[in-house]
Amino acid sequence: MNALKNFLESRRFELTITVLIVINAITLGLETSERAMEVAGPLLLTLDRLILSVFVLELGAKLIVYRGRFFRDPWRIFDLLVVSIALVPASANLSVLRALRILRVLRLVSMVPSLRRVVGGLIAALPGMGSIMLLLALVFYVFSVMATKLFGAHFPDWFGSIGRSAYSLFQIMTLESWSMGIVRPVMEMFPWAWLFFIPFIVSTTFTVLNLFIGIIVSAMQAEHDAAATAERSAMQQEQEVILAEIRALRDDVRALKRENAGDVRR
Amino acid sequence: MNALKNFLESRRFELTITVLIVINAITLGLETSERAMEVAGPLLLTLDRLILSVFVLELGAKLIVYRGRFFRDPWRIFDLLVVSIALVPASANLSVLRALRILRVLRLVSMVPSLRRVVGGLIAALPGMGSIMLLLALVFYVFSVMATKLFGAHFPDWFGSIGRSAYSLFQIMTLESWSMGIVRPVMEMFPWAWLFFIPFIVSTTFTVLNLFIGIIVSAMQAEHDAAATAERSAMQQEQEVILAEIRALRDDVRALKRENAGDVRR
Amino acid sequence: MNALKNFLESRRFELTITVLIVINAITLGLETSERAMEVAGPLLLTLDRLILSVFVLELGAKLIVYRGRFFRDPWRIFDLLVVSIALVPASANLSVLRALRILRVLRLVSMVPSLRRVVGGLIAALPGMGSIMLLLALVFYVFSVMATKLFGAHFPDWFGSIGRSAYSLFQIMTLESWSMGIVRPVMEMFPWAWLFFIPFIVSTTFTVLNLFIGIIVSAMQAEHDAAATAERSAMQQEQEVILAEIRALRDDVRALKRENAGDVRR
Amino acid sequence: MNALKNFLESRRFELTITVLIVINAITLGLETSERAMEVAGPLLLTLDRLILSVFVLELGAKLIVYRGRFFRDPWRIFDLLVVSIALVPASANLSVLRALRILRVLRLVSMVPSLRRVVGGLIAALPGMGSIMLLLALVFYVFSVMATKLFGAHFPDWFGSIGRSAYSLFQIMTLESWSMGIVRPVMEMFPWAWLFFIPFIVSTTFTVLNLFIGIIVSAMQAEHDAAATAERSAMQQEQEVILAEIRALRDDVRALKRENAGDVRR
Repeated sequence: MNALKNFLESRRFELTITVLIVINAITLGLETSERAMEVAGPLLLTLDRLILSVFVLELGAKLIVYRGRFFRDPWRIFDLLVVSIALVPASANLSVLRALRILRVLRLVSMVPSLRRVVGGLIAALPGMGSIMLLLALVFYVFSVMATKLFGAHFPDWFGSIGRSAYSLFQIMTLESWSMGIVRPVMEMFPWAWLFFIPFIVSTTFTVLNLFIGIIVSAMQAEHDAAATAERSAMQQEQEVILAEIRALRDDVRALKRENAGDVRR
Repeated sequence: MNALKNFLESRRFELTITVLIVINAITLGLETSERAMEVAGPLLLTLDRLILSVFVLELGAKLIVYRGRFFRDPWRIFDLLVVSIALVPASANLSVLRALRILRVLRLVSMVPSLRRVVGGLIAALPGMGSIMLLLALVFYVFSVMATKLFGAHFPDWFGSIGRSAYSLFQIMTLESWSMGIVRPVMEMFPWAWLFFIPFIVSTTFTVLNLFIGIIVSAMQAEHDAAATAERSAMQQEQEVILAEIRALRDDVRALKRENAGDVRR
Repeated sequence: MNALKNFLESRRFELTITVLIVINAITLGLETSERAMEVAGPLLLTLDRLILSVFVLELGAKLIVYRGRFFRDPWRIFDLLVVSIALVPASANLSVLRALRILRVLRLVSMVPSLRRVVGGLIAALPGMGSIMLLLALVFYVFSVMATKLFGAHFPDWFGSIGRSAYSLFQIMTLESWSMGIVRPVMEMFPWAWLFFIPFIVSTTFTVLNLFIGIIVSAMQAEHDAAATAERSAMQQEQEVILAEIRALRDDVRALKRENAGDVRR
Repeated sequence: MNALKNFLESRRFELTITVLIVINAITLGLETSERAMEVAGPLLLTLDRLILSVFVLELGAKLIVYRGRFFRDPWRIFDLLVVSIALVPASANLSVLRALRILRVLRLVSMVPSLRRVVGGLIAALPGMGSIMLLLALVFYVFSVMATKLFGAHFPDWFGSIGRSAYSLFQIMTLESWSMGIVRPVMEMFPWAWLFFIPFIVSTTFTVLNLFIGIIVSAMQAEHDAAATAERSAMQQEQEVILAEIRALRDDVRALKRENAGDVRR
């Protein structure tokens, strides 16, 4: 059991898995090319099935070794999810499930430490954005309901339901064809429509901007705090040396005074 | 009276109102769906009217309790505005007024402290941008008048009046279809038109960029100042300890000197 | 002469000019509206001519009072330019000259101190961007020549000459319709064209980004330097007080020593 | 040999080359204009050939003088590459090779120190972005394979192969016509397609944003570190002066004590 655990955690085993993921990425990519499938179709599919078996064995072994602790590492849960997609009985929506098999390649993120750090950093930035994202969701909901009620009857493709309105407003927020594609046609029907859309554009882009500024500021704050703490501690050490010297000096002077006093008394 | 005030300010009452806002958000959203209206139309409308009554009672009670002070809190004025929209006699533009009822859901912002803080922060960033926004308005006005005079006769849809020009220039500033949609057609008539539009794009995007930089810098400045003040005060305390030690030492030395002098005189 | 100078520099005179500029802005804006011209056309034109006369008199008086020094203040040169546009004999391109008269309204920038500061700040940011803008110009020139040679023969509207190529590349840099509008049609003729355009997009947007970062960094650096200097000087003053105390203490000890020595000798 | 080296490194020779590059830029630009070719075609071509000869001689001389060390300076390798393009035997793809001759003008970057510094700074920012760019490449690959499998059969122009999918996804990432041009047509066939594209847009723009923030933070960190180091060293010098004073003082006190002791003993 311990030997298995050591084997699973050995650098060589991790490297083997990483190489297998890269090979799998290539075979899954080649499967999209008709020419490659004609030339080496069976080989590619066999390789894919072989690598998948290795992944299943690997995760099975890890499940046995770690048991309950397996689910404590979010990366292992991620690995389990993307590998198990291939094991779902392919029934109804076959092509979508086949397409999702490539997600397996994202296991690279959990295997390569530098990628894991980058993704971890991105995810760590999310919670600090919680309330501003809640605000954005609220603004989207309110504007979607309004757009549906105002323009839904005349422009059902864009604003026929809350979902369609939300999609169209997301497009407008990214500024894609917002005027020539959406707002100018709407304004031909409702000349005051710019009173709805321009405030929406200004407020959401301003909010998204502030979201980004918040992330920048907190990232820099973290960097700056570390630097300032180091700086301050260096100076405080120096100040403490000065203080120690002064206190030693005071002791010297007091000793001198005591001696003097003894001197006099004698 | 005091009991009513305590009740209105109790955490439980606030929570009840928050829950009612969320329920109202859902019912107002469902009202846009024809299927939901078929199935549960009367229920949704009754719920909406009930919740509205609670809001009216709540704000009425607050008006009675706080009187003049009611209008000192901008959030309470906001609440009053979005609730009273539903009470305007629906005559002429019924559909617009019905659509605006969803604004009531924005009361969530005034009820949830974290949302209130985010929106407060966004609004607090505005005054510092006053003069740059005035500059932007001036640039828009000048370019709108010029565009109307130069291109208005040939492109009445885009530049027929100052308002239309301002809208088209806003679209151009967001870079949406500025070239393929607007400037290339204009340049077929006026080949030198790029001399008007490219400086406009460069100067307004540069100005907007500086607006954003200004906000970033002031936000970081605020963060940094707080950190620097804390740091500096820590070091100054240390320095003051050193200074106090030195002064005490000087007193010691002076005492020693005085003693010495007395010693000699004796 | 001195009285005239005092009058020209008085706060009241500046305010009068500012008010006249605002009135002129409104009349020039109203001139674009046909309805306003029908109702009050002669009044608007008379007002415009009157205000222009005041501006001409003002600048003439300033020229007489300041003489050579008039041209030392760039804002006064700016005022002179935008006012003298209206005096150019309107011959050939009448409509363009009439349109440029609105530039007079930009005198507001030179009259309102906060606007003058903002524009001054924007212009002050330019020289630091000199070499990165030279680089951008070089990249544009090289890519324009290449685009003209590669695609000019088949797409004369977009890449027929260096000027047209530069305009199209500017459009591509702003990401407006770059793919659906330009690169996809070009790729139907030259399938490898993405090898030309995608590096162009990546390198120019990355360069422009660095331009912006440079401005942000230098703006923050200036802010930070000011704060750091203030902070440092406060701490150095404190340190100097400590140093002065220590030196005074040393003098005390030396005096004590000298006394002691005298004591012994006596 | 040494004389040749001094000549090649002399400021005057560098200036001559710089001037020749600028002249070459102009002649290569004029070659794209039919009118200029009619008027002065032979002259332009002769000038171009002459300047090319000078460049070939210059690089040949440098190769002889520096030998192996020639290839240690990346700028010299760059010079060699862009000059040797013109010497490739023009056979198959003549027009592309002719178009690439303008790259020679980029030698200006290696000749003008301020441009060299800017480009060096841009390139220096790249390695720090290594892992985030690897992540972006991985995300692009995974989404390209998925898009090809999901939409390739119905939209061969956009998602027919991995290459086409990657190009379309790059276009979508730049937000160009992503909705009206691509996603809305795809959604008519696959109504759930927004579940694929919106997460792609959000995650890639968020990743690119973090890439940019990383560069901003590290650029500012470098600036700040330099400033902080200067500041700290100034304060530490001050502290060291204080410490030296205190130690001298302690020596004084000790001397006093020793004298006192001698005093007593005597």
